[in-house]
Amino acid sequence: MEIAFSERTKNSIPSLIREVGIRGAKIPGFISFALGNPCSEAIPAEAIRHMADKVLSENPMKVLQYGAAKGNPEFSAQIVEKLTTEMEFPEEDNDILIVSGSQQGLDMMPRILCNDGDGVYVDEFVFTGALNAMKNMGAVPIGIPMDQDGMIPEELEKAAQTGNGKYIYLIPNFHNPTGITMPTERRKKIYEIAKRYNLIIYEDNPYGRLRYRGEEQECFKHMDTENIVLYAGSFSKTLSAGLRVGFLYGPKALIQKLTAVKGSMDAQSPMLNQLIVSDFLKEYDYKEHIAAITRLYQKKYDTMIHGLQKYCADKCEITIPDGGMFVWITLPENVDCDAVYEEAMKRGLGIVRSLAFAANPGKPGKSFRLNFSYPSVEEIQKGTKIFGEVLEEFVS
Amino acid sequence: MEIAFSERTKNSIPSLIREVGIRGAKIPGFISFALGNPCSEAIPAEAIRHMADKVLSENPMKVLQYGAAKGNPEFSAQIVEKLTTEMEFPEEDNDILIVSGSQQGLDMMPRILCNDGDGVYVDEFVFTGALNAMKNMGAVPIGIPMDQDGMIPEELEKAAQTGNGKYIYLIPNFHNPTGITMPTERRKKIYEIAKRYNLIIYEDNPYGRLRYRGEEQECFKHMDTENIVLYAGSFSKTLSAGLRVGFLYGPKALIQKLTAVKGSMDAQSPMLNQLIVSDFLKEYDYKEHIAAITRLYQKKYDTMIHGLQKYCADKCEITIPDGGMFVWITLPENVDCDAVYEEAMKRGLGIVRSLAFAANPGKPGKSFRLNFSYPSVEEIQKGTKIFGEVLEEFVS
Repeated sequence: MEIAFSERTKNSIPSLIREVGIRGAKIPGFISFALGNPCSEAIPAEAIRHMADKVLSENPMKVLQYGAAKGNPEFSAQIVEKLTTEMEFPEEDNDILIVSGSQQGLDMMPRILCNDGDGVYVDEFVFTGALNAMKNMGAVPIGIPMDQDGMIPEELEKAAQTGNGKYIYLIPNFHNPTGITMPTERRKKIYEIAKRYNLIIYEDNPYGRLRYRGEEQECFKHMDTENIVLYAGSFSKTLSAGLRVGFLYGPKALIQKLTAVKGSMDAQSPMLNQLIVSDFLKEYDYKEHIAAITRLYQKKYDTMIHGLQKYCADKCEITIPDGGMFVWITLPENVDCDAVYEEAMKRGLGIVRSLAFAANPGKPGKSFRLNFSYPSVEEIQKGTKIFGEVLEEFVS
Repeated sequence: MEIAFSERTKNSIPSLIREVGIRGAKIPGFISFALGNPCSEAIPAEAIRHMADKVLSENPMKVLQYGAAKGNPEFSAQIVEKLTTEMEFPEEDNDILIVSGSQQGLDMMPRILCNDGDGVYVDEFVFTGALNAMKNMGAVPIGIPMDQDGMIPEELEKAAQTGNGKYIYLIPNFHNPTGITMPTERRKKIYEIAKRYNLIIYEDNPYGRLRYRGEEQECFKHMDTENIVLYAGSFSKTLSAGLRVGFLYGPKALIQKLTAVKGSMDAQSPMLNQLIVSDFLKEYDYKEHIAAITRLYQKKYDTMIHGLQKYCADKCEITIPDGGMFVWITLPENVDCDAVYEEAMKRGLGIVRSLAFAANPGKPGKSFRLNFSYPSVEEIQKGTKIFGEVLEEFVS
């Protein structure tokens, strides 16, 4: 029997990022700059094991029975406490929902705000997982041009005048894939436009705590006098991606709707995973943990920047990030990126073409995303050298 | 700012089942027949703790890093092995997807098969979570009349002729809420109609292993010569609901699409939870565990049937199930079910009105769902007596 799939999902395509991994798995000594994973040394496995044991010993039924769709109340309160004190987010008329990794938030938002064919304003290059979530929900990403500071306010305003977009999706810190951090002044301009056009801002901040240089910028949620910002946080990049624990914090009315929908999506996120994170935050020094993994990533970051500057600087444009996990490389107009990608694969190096992140069809770009959080320092040294050799062949 | 929600979610309503719990929490000594939970004694907490520790000791990165959207391959193979040998399900052209509890399957199916406004054929009274998942996805449940054997084939065929429904949703064993088990002969007739009208059957079987009397009936998936059945299994009712581990097994093309969509929904289900279940299945005797919890529930079942027959038999119709967790009580036409519900609440007994399960708007029914898996034997004794007293007031 031929299955007729819904309009919204009939064109869903396998991930270009995943393709790199599948092909790379067959290549001996393959170095992957293609992932978005934390490295294993950054995951406090022993502490997580202890916390799992603690949770399952002390009150197993709290985690093994059904629980609230909204999430564990104590865990939620713990996060809200951090957000409203440490980060000085507004508290009034805001609420929190625990989600199964922040990917789930990306899926829920177009669901509750977009009818089929409605748009979402996004950076012209943006996290594949966000694009796929929108598309699989029948929403249409509208890619807004960027400069070195991220989304261009004037371009956003031009698009907002059409009224096609239902909200704005942003990764203001160490953007995936470009690594760009949007300066506070730029954020203020974007916020004003959102206010003017009645648009909610979805502020996605999975990497925000992984800073290697520069000054912290103000969060949209911090400047949110109008209560129009939904802030998405995650423990995937700082504790463990496999536990699938993230949260959404924002306008009460929005959280209420998201919670109702969450109930019919998967009933609730597993409490065991939530309480492992909750207990970790209680029993360990989270700030010290973040400082430790930042030192770890700093070394990898330095190695990658150094390698790229040494081997590639004269052949491409390097967007050096202030933090996060990615460096964005842009090639001259006349270079065939598919050929560069294939040649890199042939030499055992996995990189992701900008095509994977392109919001606007027919505008694949001339860039590559290079990840430095997952590979080892040695792999980064080797990989940047390989990348230089590949560019040597294609860039004259 | 007034938020404009999508058509599909703007009318999402809070659960009538949850309402019982929220109100009941304020009543001292409240007895709830309203839940669908396993009882805590049926959850092998100690074993789960050991398995969690084993998984996190032996290979923590297998569960703490990102994993495949499709699920852990060994766990998947384990389940497929059971399905194809013990249950003799067809293997060719079938595949499996691990989901975050079977609720997630209920959400994914309308997403990939229904455009906004497309229908799904369901029993006229059916699991609220299935109805809400369809509605929150923009699909329209089409309630098909039932008799004592479940969905009536002739009525299904009449509806199928309209072509409005995209698939058939069924809980053939110990149906939620009516407790009905569809006889094999009836299943064969439904299967023929599905075949004739090119309809996929979604066979939801969360309670199938909890049988207290009668003969096992043939699964739709077992008779699936045309490969049109998607079988949904769950560990929520037999191991732990809080772990959120379920699976979908069916046509390869369907699983492929579901997997692509799962990737953008929540990336993957957490591997820790999958491997806890996987190791439990390896290290413990699952059949003996099922036998033990069945003995436990049998006692509660007997108590409830006995109590209802003693206190209520002359005032209502009792649909006695062969297994599962629910008894369905139907009152005479002239009785005000809302008043019965309120009076029961006043006396400290929580029950769920058929309204909560009604697929067809404006046809709330005259029934109540009574759960016997969660309350204690003593609570069941007391609760059935209270229910009898309430009915005494309303049924002449």
